[in-house]
Amino acid sequence: MKNEIQQISIIGSGNVAWHLAKNFVELGVNVSHIYGRTPKHVEELCTETGSINTRSISELPKNQFVLICTPDDSIASICDLIDDSCPVAYTSGSIEISSLPQRTNLGVFYPLQTFSKHIELDLSTVPFFIESTNEEFTQALFILASKITDTITLANSQERSELHLAAVFVNNFTNHLYQVGAQICEEQEVPFELLRPLIAETAAKIESITPKEAQTGPALRNDKTTLQKHLDQLRDPVFKNLYLTLTESIQKNDEYSKL
Amino acid sequence: MKNEIQQISIIGSGNVAWHLAKNFVELGVNVSHIYGRTPKHVEELCTETGSINTRSISELPKNQFVLICTPDDSIASICDLIDDSCPVAYTSGSIEISSLPQRTNLGVFYPLQTFSKHIELDLSTVPFFIESTNEEFTQALFILASKITDTITLANSQERSELHLAAVFVNNFTNHLYQVGAQICEEQEVPFELLRPLIAETAAKIESITPKEAQTGPALRNDKTTLQKHLDQLRDPVFKNLYLTLTESIQKNDEYSKL
Repeated sequence: MKNEIQQISIIGSGNVAWHLAKNFVELGVNVSHIYGRTPKHVEELCTETGSINTRSISELPKNQFVLICTPDDSIASICDLIDDSCPVAYTSGSIEISSLPQRTNLGVFYPLQTFSKHIELDLSTVPFFIESTNEEFTQALFILASKITDTITLANSQERSELHLAAVFVNNFTNHLYQVGAQICEEQEVPFELLRPLIAETAAKIESITPKEAQTGPALRNDKTTLQKHLDQLRDPVFKNLYLTLTESIQKNDEYSKL
Repeated sequence: MKNEIQQISIIGSGNVAWHLAKNFVELGVNVSHIYGRTPKHVEELCTETGSINTRSISELPKNQFVLICTPDDSIASICDLIDDSCPVAYTSGSIEISSLPQRTNLGVFYPLQTFSKHIELDLSTVPFFIESTNEEFTQALFILASKITDTITLANSQERSELHLAAVFVNNFTNHLYQVGAQICEEQEVPFELLRPLIAETAAKIESITPKEAQTGPALRNDKTTLQKHLDQLRDPVFKNLYLTLTESIQKNDEYSKL
Protein backbone atom coordinates (compact mmCIF):
# COMPACT_ATOMS: atom_id res chain seq x y z
CA MET A 1 0.00 0.00 0.00
CA LYS A 2 1.03 3.60 -0.45
CA ASN A 3 2.30 5.29 2.68
CA GLU A 4 -0.07 8.21 2.51
CA ILE A 5 -3.71 7.41 3.19
CA GLN A 6 -5.76 10.00 1.30
CA GLN A 7 -9.18 8.38 1.10
CA ILE A 8 -10.84 6.32 3.81
CA SER A 9 -13.98 4.43 4.80
CA ILE A 10 -15.27 4.65 8.36
CA ILE A 11 -17.30 2.03 10.20
CA GLY A 12 -19.28 3.43 13.11
CA SER A 13 -21.27 6.60 13.73
CA GLY A 14 -20.79 7.06 17.47
CA ASN A 15 -18.76 9.67 19.33
CA VAL A 16 -15.29 8.62 18.10
CA ALA A 17 -16.41 8.20 14.45
CA TRP A 18 -18.16 11.58 14.63
CA HIS A 19 -15.08 13.52 15.77
CA LEU A 20 -12.53 11.67 13.63
CA ALA A 21 -14.58 11.76 10.42
CA LYS A 22 -15.25 15.49 10.73
CA ASN A 23 -11.61 16.15 11.56
CA PHE A 24 -10.35 14.09 8.60
CA VAL A 25 -12.51 16.08 6.20
CA GLU A 26 -11.30 19.36 7.70
CA LEU A 27 -7.73 18.17 7.18
CA GLY A 28 -8.32 17.26 3.55
CA VAL A 29 -8.59 13.48 3.99
CA ASN A 30 -11.59 12.27 1.97
CA VAL A 31 -14.01 10.14 4.01
CA SER A 32 -15.68 8.58 0.99
CA HIS A 33 -17.94 6.01 2.70
CA ILE A 34 -19.44 5.50 6.15
CA TYR A 35 -21.19 2.38 7.40
CA GLY A 36 -22.96 2.18 10.79
CA ARG A 37 -25.76 0.37 12.57
CA THR A 38 -27.81 3.46 13.45
CA PRO A 39 -29.19 4.87 10.15
CA LYS A 40 -30.12 8.26 11.64
CA HIS A 41 -26.60 8.83 13.05
CA VAL A 42 -24.89 7.65 9.86
CA GLU A 43 -27.08 9.95 7.79
CA GLU A 44 -26.28 12.93 10.05
CA LEU A 45 -22.56 12.23 9.90
CA CYS A 46 -22.59 11.71 6.10
CA THR A 47 -24.27 15.11 5.77
CA GLU A 48 -21.45 16.67 7.82
CA THR A 49 -18.65 14.96 5.90
CA GLY A 50 -20.10 14.61 2.38
CA SER A 51 -19.68 10.82 2.55
CA ILE A 52 -21.73 8.01 1.01
CA ASN A 53 -24.02 6.24 3.49
CA THR A 54 -23.18 2.61 2.76
CA ARG A 55 -25.79 -0.10 3.33
CA SER A 56 -23.42 -3.00 3.96
CA ILE A 57 -19.78 -3.49 4.80
CA SER A 58 -19.27 -5.53 1.65
CA GLU A 59 -20.09 -2.43 -0.43
CA LEU A 60 -17.14 -0.43 0.93
CA PRO A 61 -14.53 0.35 -1.77
CA LYS A 62 -11.91 -2.36 -2.26
CA ASN A 63 -8.22 -1.57 -1.67
CA GLN A 64 -9.23 1.43 0.46
CA PHE A 65 -8.25 1.99 4.10
CA VAL A 66 -11.06 1.22 6.59
CA LEU A 67 -11.13 2.71 10.10
CA ILE A 68 -13.33 0.81 12.59
CA CYS A 69 -14.69 3.12 15.31
CA THR A 70 -17.15 0.73 17.01
CA PRO A 71 -17.46 -0.84 20.49
CA ASP A 72 -14.81 -3.42 21.40
CA ASP A 73 -17.04 -6.48 21.24
CA SER A 74 -18.04 -5.84 17.60
CA ILE A 75 -14.56 -5.36 16.11
CA ALA A 76 -13.67 -9.01 15.40
CA SER A 77 -16.91 -9.79 13.55
CA ILE A 78 -16.70 -6.54 11.57
CA CYS A 79 -13.13 -7.41 10.50
CA ASP A 80 -14.42 -10.67 9.05
CA LEU A 81 -16.81 -8.78 6.77
CA ILE A 82 -14.26 -6.33 5.30
CA ASP A 83 -12.80 -7.22 1.91
CA ASP A 84 -9.32 -8.78 2.12
CA SER A 85 -7.90 -6.06 -0.12
CA CYS A 86 -8.58 -3.31 2.47
CA PRO A 87 -6.04 -2.21 5.07
CA VAL A 88 -7.91 -1.98 8.40
CA ALA A 89 -7.30 -0.14 11.66
CA TYR A 90 -9.45 0.22 14.78
CA THR A 91 -9.67 2.85 17.52
CA SER A 92 -9.99 0.63 20.60
CA GLY A 93 -7.66 0.84 23.59
CA SER A 94 -8.06 -2.67 24.85
CA ILE A 95 -8.47 -5.06 21.88
CA GLU A 96 -5.24 -6.91 20.99
CA ILE A 97 -4.27 -7.18 17.34
CA SER A 98 -3.52 -10.88 17.86
CA SER A 99 -7.11 -11.50 18.99
CA LEU A 100 -8.52 -10.43 15.60
CA PRO A 101 -8.78 -12.40 12.32
CA GLN A 102 -5.38 -12.19 10.58
CA ARG A 103 -4.92 -9.94 7.57
CA THR A 104 -1.92 -8.36 5.82
CA ASN A 105 -2.53 -4.80 6.96
CA LEU A 106 -4.17 -4.64 10.37
CA GLY A 107 -3.48 -1.83 12.81
CA VAL A 108 -4.48 0.31 15.76
CA PHE A 109 -5.27 4.02 15.67
CA TYR A 110 -6.12 4.76 19.32
CA PRO A 111 -6.89 8.33 20.46
CA LEU A 112 -6.54 8.59 24.25
CA GLN A 113 -9.42 10.95 24.86
CA THR A 114 -13.10 11.06 25.85
CA PHE A 115 -15.40 11.98 22.98
CA SER A 116 -18.92 13.37 23.12
CA LYS A 117 -20.65 14.16 19.86
CA HIS A 118 -21.87 17.59 20.85
CA ILE A 119 -18.78 18.79 22.67
CA GLU A 120 -16.14 20.49 20.53
CA LEU A 121 -12.69 19.01 20.93
CA ASP A 122 -9.25 20.13 19.79
CA LEU A 123 -7.85 16.87 18.39
CA SER A 124 -4.39 18.39 17.88
CA THR A 125 -3.64 17.93 21.60
CA VAL A 126 -4.92 14.33 21.77
CA PRO A 127 -2.24 11.61 22.11
CA PHE A 128 -2.63 8.86 19.47
CA PHE A 129 -1.20 5.36 19.88
CA ILE A 130 -0.25 3.37 16.79
CA GLU A 131 0.45 -0.31 16.29
CA SER A 132 0.26 -2.56 13.23
CA THR A 133 1.20 -5.88 11.68
CA ASN A 134 3.92 -4.46 9.43
CA GLU A 135 6.27 -1.54 9.22
CA GLU A 136 4.89 -0.01 6.07
CA PHE A 137 1.35 0.14 7.44
CA THR A 138 2.64 1.48 10.75
CA GLN A 139 4.25 4.31 8.81
CA ALA A 140 1.02 5.00 6.92
CA LEU A 141 -0.95 5.17 10.17
CA PHE A 142 1.72 7.39 11.67
CA ILE A 143 1.50 9.83 8.76
CA LEU A 144 -2.30 9.84 9.00
CA ALA A 145 -2.17 10.54 12.76
CA SER A 146 0.42 13.28 12.25
CA LYS A 147 -2.14 15.25 10.25
CA ILE A 148 -4.40 15.27 13.30
CA THR A 149 -2.12 15.56 16.33
CA ASP A 150 1.33 16.46 17.56
CA THR A 151 1.56 13.53 19.99
CA ILE A 152 1.93 10.08 18.42
CA THR A 153 3.37 7.09 20.24
CA LEU A 154 4.09 3.58 19.02
CA ALA A 155 2.64 1.24 21.63
CA ASN A 156 2.17 -2.51 21.58
CA SER A 157 -1.12 -4.14 22.63
CA GLN A 158 -0.05 -4.61 26.23
CA GLU A 159 1.13 -1.01 26.70
CA ARG A 160 -2.05 0.26 25.07
CA SER A 161 -4.17 -1.94 27.29
CA GLU A 162 -2.46 -0.54 30.41
CA LEU A 163 -3.00 3.00 29.12
CA HIS A 164 -6.66 2.18 28.61
CA LEU A 165 -6.85 0.90 32.18
CA ALA A 166 -5.24 4.13 33.45
CA ALA A 167 -7.73 6.06 31.31
CA VAL A 168 -10.63 4.24 32.97
CA PHE A 169 -9.37 5.45 36.36
CA VAL A 170 -8.78 9.10 35.39
CA ASN A 171 -11.83 9.42 33.13
CA ASN A 172 -14.70 6.94 33.77
CA PHE A 173 -14.10 6.58 37.50
CA THR A 174 -13.34 10.27 38.01
CA ASN A 175 -16.53 11.21 36.20
CA HIS A 176 -18.43 8.86 38.50
CA LEU A 177 -17.00 10.72 41.52
CA TYR A 178 -18.33 13.94 39.95
CA GLN A 179 -21.70 12.22 39.79
CA VAL A 180 -21.51 11.26 43.48
CA GLY A 181 -20.74 14.93 44.24
CA ALA A 182 -23.70 15.98 42.08
CA GLN A 183 -26.01 13.61 43.94
CA ILE A 184 -24.91 14.89 47.35
CA CYS A 185 -25.58 18.45 46.13
CA GLU A 186 -28.98 17.43 44.76
CA GLU A 187 -30.03 15.87 48.06
CA GLN A 188 -29.04 19.08 49.86
CA GLU A 189 -30.66 21.25 47.18
CA VAL A 190 -27.32 22.97 46.64
CA PRO A 191 -26.44 23.72 42.99
CA PHE A 192 -23.74 21.39 41.58
CA GLU A 193 -22.31 24.48 39.79
CA LEU A 194 -20.71 25.42 43.12
CA LEU A 195 -18.41 22.40 42.84
CA ARG A 196 -17.24 23.27 39.32
CA PRO A 197 -14.36 25.63 40.26
CA LEU A 198 -13.05 22.92 42.61
CA ILE A 199 -13.29 20.25 39.90
CA ALA A 200 -11.52 22.51 37.40
CA GLU A 201 -8.74 23.37 39.86
CA THR A 202 -8.26 19.71 40.89
CA ALA A 203 -7.59 18.85 37.24
CA ALA A 204 -5.52 21.99 36.58
CA LYS A 205 -3.24 21.40 39.57
CA ILE A 206 -1.64 18.28 38.12
CA GLU A 207 -0.44 20.28 35.13
CA SER A 208 2.23 21.68 37.45
CA ILE A 209 2.58 19.23 40.37
CA THR A 210 2.26 15.43 40.60
CA PRO A 211 -0.96 13.83 41.91
CA LYS A 212 1.08 12.61 44.88
CA GLU A 213 2.11 16.18 45.75
CA ALA A 214 -1.45 17.40 45.20
CA GLN A 215 -3.08 14.86 47.54
CA THR A 216 -4.81 16.40 50.58
CA GLY A 217 -7.84 15.64 52.71
CA PRO A 218 -9.04 13.72 55.77
CA ALA A 219 -7.97 10.30 54.40
CA LEU A 220 -4.34 11.38 53.92
CA ARG A 221 -4.26 13.17 57.30
CA ASN A 222 -6.03 10.16 58.86
CA ASP A 223 -8.40 12.67 60.48
CA LYS A 224 -10.58 10.04 62.18
CA THR A 225 -13.22 12.52 63.40
CA THR A 226 -13.98 13.82 59.91
CA LEU A 227 -13.77 10.35 58.34
CA GLN A 228 -16.35 9.02 60.80
CA LYS A 229 -18.55 12.07 60.36
CA HIS A 230 -18.57 11.62 56.58
CA LEU A 231 -19.41 7.92 56.90
CA ASP A 232 -22.32 8.83 59.19
CA GLN A 233 -23.53 11.39 56.63
CA LEU A 234 -23.52 8.90 53.73
CA ARG A 235 -26.80 7.01 53.80
CA ASP A 236 -26.34 5.06 50.54
CA PRO A 237 -24.42 1.84 51.39
CA VAL A 238 -22.74 1.80 47.94
CA PHE A 239 -21.39 5.34 48.42
CA LYS A 240 -20.35 4.48 51.99
CA ASN A 241 -18.38 1.51 50.66
CA LEU A 242 -16.87 3.73 47.96
CA TYR A 243 -15.77 6.24 50.61
CA LEU A 244 -14.16 3.49 52.72
CA THR A 245 -12.38 1.87 49.76
CA LEU A 246 -10.99 5.16 48.43
CA THR A 247 -9.87 6.16 51.93
CA GLU A 248 -8.12 2.80 52.38
CA SER A 249 -6.43 3.12 48.98
CA ILE A 250 -5.15 6.65 49.76
CA GLN A 251 -3.79 5.50 53.12
CA LYS A 252 -2.18 2.27 51.80
CA ASN A 253 -0.61 4.18 48.94
CA ASP A 254 0.81 6.74 51.34
CA GLU A 255 2.26 3.97 53.54
CA TYR A 256 3.96 2.30 50.56
CA SER A 257 5.47 5.58 49.43
CA LYS A 258 7.02 6.07 52.88
CA LEU A 259 8.68 2.63 52.97
CA MET B 1 -18.83 45.43 65.73
CA LYS B 2 -18.70 47.55 62.61
CA ASN B 3 -19.99 45.85 59.48
CA GLU B 4 -16.86 46.41 57.45
CA ILE B 5 -13.82 44.45 58.50
CA GLN B 6 -10.78 46.48 57.47
CA GLN B 7 -8.02 45.03 59.60
CA ILE B 8 -7.56 41.37 60.50
CA SER B 9 -5.38 38.86 62.28
CA ILE B 10 -4.76 35.45 60.74
CA ILE B 11 -3.97 32.23 62.57
CA GLY B 12 -2.23 29.65 60.42
CA SER B 13 0.44 29.74 57.74
CA GLY B 14 -0.59 26.80 55.56
CA ASN B 15 -2.08 26.77 52.07
CA VAL B 16 -5.40 28.48 52.91
CA ALA B 17 -3.79 31.16 55.11
CA TRP B 18 -1.20 31.80 52.40
CA HIS B 19 -3.73 32.46 49.62
CA LEU B 20 -6.27 34.37 51.73
CA ALA B 21 -3.70 36.59 53.47
CA LYS B 22 -2.04 37.58 50.19
CA ASN B 23 -5.41 38.18 48.57
CA PHE B 24 -6.64 40.35 51.47
CA VAL B 25 -3.58 42.56 51.22
CA GLU B 26 -4.03 42.89 47.44
CA LEU B 27 -7.64 43.93 48.06
CA GLY B 28 -6.66 46.59 50.59
CA VAL B 29 -7.62 44.66 53.73
CA ASN B 30 -4.79 45.05 56.24
CA VAL B 31 -3.52 41.74 57.64
CA SER B 32 -1.85 43.29 60.66
CA HIS B 33 -0.81 40.14 62.56
CA ILE B 34 -0.19 36.48 61.74
CA TYR B 35 0.30 33.68 64.23
CA GLY B 36 1.28 30.13 63.24
CA ARG B 37 3.03 27.03 64.54
CA THR B 38 5.69 26.85 61.81
CA PRO B 39 8.03 29.86 62.32
CA LYS B 40 9.60 29.60 58.85
CA HIS B 41 6.24 29.64 57.06
CA VAL B 42 4.87 32.47 59.21
CA GLU B 43 7.98 34.52 58.52
CA GLU B 44 7.68 33.94 54.76
CA LEU B 45 4.02 34.88 54.76
CA CYS B 46 4.59 37.99 56.90
CA THR B 47 7.22 39.12 54.41
CA GLU B 48 4.67 38.75 51.59
CA THR B 49 1.91 40.58 53.44
CA GLY B 50 3.81 43.10 55.58
CA SER B 51 2.27 41.61 58.74
CA ILE B 52 3.66 41.28 62.26
CA ASN B 53 4.83 37.74 63.12
CA THR B 54 3.11 37.23 66.47
CA ARG B 55 4.67 34.93 69.05
CA SER B 56 1.48 33.97 70.88
CA ILE B 57 -2.26 34.11 70.27
CA SER B 58 -2.73 36.22 73.38
CA GLU B 59 -0.65 38.97 71.75
CA LEU B 60 -3.09 39.43 68.83
CA PRO B 61 -4.80 42.88 68.89
CA LYS B 62 -7.95 43.03 71.01
CA ASN B 63 -11.31 43.90 69.35
CA GLN B 64 -9.89 42.88 65.98
CA PHE B 65 -11.33 40.21 63.68
CA VAL B 66 -9.39 36.92 63.75
CA LEU B 67 -9.55 34.41 60.89
CA ILE B 68 -8.52 30.85 61.84
CA CYS B 69 -7.05 28.96 58.86
CA THR B 70 -5.77 25.84 60.63
CA PRO B 71 -6.58 22.09 60.50
CA ASP B 72 -9.98 21.07 61.87
CA ASP B 73 -8.76 19.38 65.03
CA SER B 74 -6.96 22.49 66.27
CA ILE B 75 -9.79 25.01 65.87
CA ALA B 76 -11.57 24.49 69.23
CA SER B 77 -8.42 24.85 71.33
CA ILE B 78 -7.30 27.92 69.34
CA CYS B 79 -10.71 29.55 69.91
CA ASP B 80 -10.16 29.19 73.67
CA LEU B 81 -6.94 31.22 73.47
CA ILE B 82 -8.35 34.19 71.52
CA ASP B 83 -9.33 37.25 73.55
CA ASP B 84 -13.11 37.48 74.18
CA SER B 85 -13.21 40.91 72.53
CA CYS B 86 -12.25 39.50 69.10
CA PRO B 87 -14.80 38.39 66.51
CA VAL B 88 -13.62 35.03 65.18
CA ALA B 89 -14.26 33.07 61.99
CA TYR B 90 -12.72 29.85 60.66
CA THR B 91 -12.25 28.40 57.16
CA SER B 92 -13.20 24.76 57.80
CA GLY B 93 -15.88 22.93 55.85
CA SER B 94 -16.75 20.33 58.42
CA ILE B 95 -16.51 21.89 61.91
CA GLU B 96 -19.91 22.90 63.33
CA ILE B 97 -20.22 26.28 65.04
CA SER B 98 -22.10 24.61 67.90
CA SER B 99 -19.12 22.34 68.61
CA LEU B 100 -16.86 25.30 69.43
CA PRO B 101 -16.58 27.33 72.68
CA GLN B 102 -19.37 29.91 72.66
CA ARG B 103 -18.59 33.57 71.94
CA THR B 104 -20.61 36.58 70.78
CA ASN B 105 -19.20 36.78 67.28
CA LEU B 106 -18.27 33.37 65.91
CA GLY B 107 -18.55 32.52 62.24
CA VAL B 108 -17.53 30.49 59.24
CA PHE B 109 -15.70 31.76 56.16
CA TYR B 110 -15.37 28.62 54.04
CA PRO B 111 -13.81 28.77 50.56
CA LEU B 112 -14.78 25.66 48.58
CA GLN B 113 -11.50 25.19 46.76
CA THR B 114 -8.20 23.30 46.90
CA PHE B 115 -5.23 25.47 47.81
CA SER B 116 -1.55 24.85 47.19
CA LYS B 117 0.92 27.48 48.28
CA HIS B 118 2.89 27.59 45.06
CA ILE B 119 0.00 27.40 42.61
CA GLU B 120 -1.58 30.71 41.61
CA LEU B 121 -5.33 30.79 42.09
CA ASP B 122 -8.00 33.23 40.98
CA LEU B 123 -10.02 33.60 44.19
CA SER B 124 -12.71 35.65 42.45
CA THR B 125 -14.25 32.44 41.05
CA VAL B 126 -14.14 30.52 44.35
CA PRO B 127 -17.52 29.97 46.08
CA PHE B 128 -17.46 31.10 49.74
CA PHE B 129 -19.90 29.81 52.37
CA ILE B 130 -20.80 32.02 55.31
CA GLU B 131 -22.44 31.25 58.64
CA SER B 132 -22.35 32.98 62.01
CA THR B 133 -23.92 33.33 65.44
CA ASN B 134 -25.62 36.66 64.68
CA GLU B 135 -26.92 38.65 61.79
CA GLU B 136 -24.59 41.60 62.13
CA PHE B 137 -21.49 39.41 62.04
CA THR B 138 -22.92 37.41 59.14
CA GLN B 139 -23.25 40.68 57.25
CA ALA B 140 -19.66 41.66 58.09
CA LEU B 141 -18.36 38.28 56.84
CA PHE B 142 -20.51 38.62 53.74
CA ILE B 143 -19.04 42.04 52.95
CA LEU B 144 -15.53 40.72 53.53
CA ALA B 145 -16.13 37.75 51.21
CA SER B 146 -17.66 40.01 48.56
CA LYS B 147 -14.32 41.78 48.23
CA ILE B 148 -12.75 38.45 47.25
CA THR B 149 -15.36 36.59 45.23
CA ASP B 150 -18.58 36.89 43.23
CA THR B 151 -20.11 33.69 44.66
CA ILE B 152 -21.18 33.85 48.31
CA THR B 153 -23.76 31.51 49.85
CA LEU B 154 -25.22 31.44 53.34
CA ALA B 155 -25.03 27.82 54.48
CA ASN B 156 -25.69 26.29 57.88
CA SER B 157 -23.28 23.78 59.42
CA GLN B 158 -25.11 20.76 58.01
CA GLU B 159 -25.23 22.08 54.44
CA ARG B 160 -21.58 23.06 54.65
CA SER B 161 -20.66 19.64 55.97
CA GLU B 162 -22.43 17.96 53.03
CA LEU B 163 -20.64 20.29 50.62
CA HIS B 164 -17.36 19.35 52.23
CA LEU B 165 -18.22 15.68 51.78
CA ALA B 166 -19.03 16.30 48.09
CA ALA B 167 -15.72 18.16 47.81
CA VAL B 168 -13.85 15.16 49.21
CA PHE B 169 -15.30 13.03 46.40
CA VAL B 170 -14.61 15.46 43.54
CA ASN B 171 -11.24 16.67 44.84
CA ASN B 172 -9.40 14.31 47.25
CA PHE B 173 -10.75 11.09 45.78
CA THR B 174 -10.48 12.28 42.18
CA ASN B 175 -6.87 13.28 42.75
CA HIS B 176 -6.22 9.81 44.13
CA LEU B 177 -7.56 8.32 40.89
CA TYR B 178 -5.07 10.54 39.02
CA GLN B 179 -2.40 9.01 41.23
CA VAL B 180 -3.54 5.48 40.39
CA GLY B 181 -3.32 6.46 36.70
CA ALA B 182 0.16 7.87 37.29
CA GLN B 183 1.30 4.65 38.96
CA ILE B 184 0.01 2.49 36.11
CA CYS B 185 1.92 4.74 33.67
CA GLU B 186 5.05 4.54 35.81
CA GLU B 187 4.96 0.74 35.89
CA GLN B 188 4.66 0.68 32.08
CA GLU B 189 7.31 3.41 31.70
CA VAL B 190 4.80 5.53 29.81
CA PRO B 191 4.85 9.27 30.63
CA PHE B 192 1.90 10.38 32.78
CA GLU B 193 1.80 13.56 30.63
CA LEU B 194 -0.03 11.49 28.00
CA LEU B 195 -3.05 11.27 30.35
CA ARG B 196 -3.22 15.02 30.95
CA PRO B 197 -5.40 15.95 27.93
CA LEU B 198 -7.87 13.24 29.00
CA ILE B 199 -7.92 14.49 32.59
CA ALA B 200 -8.46 18.08 31.43
CA GLU B 201 -11.26 17.08 29.04
CA THR B 202 -12.98 14.92 31.68
CA ALA B 203 -13.19 17.97 33.96
CA ALA B 204 -14.07 20.36 31.12
CA LYS B 205 -16.95 18.20 29.87
CA ILE B 206 -19.08 18.72 32.95
CA GLU B 207 -19.06 22.47 32.31
CA SER B 208 -21.59 21.76 29.55
CA ILE B 209 -23.18 18.37 30.32
CA THR B 210 -24.05 16.61 33.60
CA PRO B 211 -21.75 13.90 35.01
CA LYS B 212 -24.58 11.43 34.37
CA GLU B 213 -24.65 12.36 30.67
CA ALA B 214 -20.84 12.25 30.51
CA GLN B 215 -20.51 8.75 31.97
CA THR B 216 -19.00 6.18 29.58
CA GLY B 217 -16.76 3.13 29.86
CA PRO B 218 -16.78 -0.64 30.39
CA ALA B 219 -18.55 -0.45 33.79
CA LEU B 220 -21.54 1.46 32.39
CA ARG B 221 -21.71 -0.78 29.29
CA ASN B 222 -21.24 -3.83 31.54
CA ASP B 223 -18.57 -4.98 29.08
CA LYS B 224 -17.62 -8.11 31.03
CA THR B 225 -14.63 -9.02 28.80
CA THR B 226 -12.89 -5.68 29.36
CA LEU B 227 -13.82 -5.58 33.08
CA GLN B 228 -12.26 -9.02 33.62
CA LYS B 229 -9.20 -8.09 31.54
CA HIS B 230 -8.63 -4.96 33.64
CA LEU B 231 -9.00 -6.92 36.88
CA ASP B 232 -6.41 -9.42 35.62
CA GLN B 233 -4.05 -6.55 34.75
CA LEU B 234 -4.26 -4.97 38.22
CA ARG B 235 -1.79 -6.75 40.44
CA ASP B 236 -2.16 -4.51 43.53
CA PRO B 237 -5.07 -5.93 45.60
CA VAL B 238 -6.02 -2.45 46.87
CA PHE B 239 -6.32 -1.08 43.31
CA LYS B 240 -8.22 -4.23 42.28
CA ASN B 241 -10.71 -3.64 45.10
CA LEU B 242 -10.96 0.03 44.08
CA TYR B 243 -11.74 -1.00 40.50
CA LEU B 244 -14.45 -3.42 41.66
CA THR B 245 -16.05 -0.94 44.07
CA LEU B 246 -16.13 1.90 41.52
CA THR B 247 -17.54 -0.44 38.87
CA GLU B 248 -20.25 -1.61 41.29
CA SER B 249 -21.10 1.98 42.22
CA ILE B 250 -21.41 3.04 38.54
CA GLN B 251 -23.67 0.06 37.79
CA LYS B 252 -25.87 0.45 40.92
CA ASN B 253 -26.23 4.14 40.24
CA ASP B 254 -27.26 3.46 36.66
CA GLU B 255 -29.85 0.90 37.82
CA TYR B 256 -31.36 3.37 40.31
CA SER B 257 -31.59 6.05 37.66
CA LYS B 258 -33.56 3.68 35.40
CA LEU B 259 -36.13 2.78 38.12
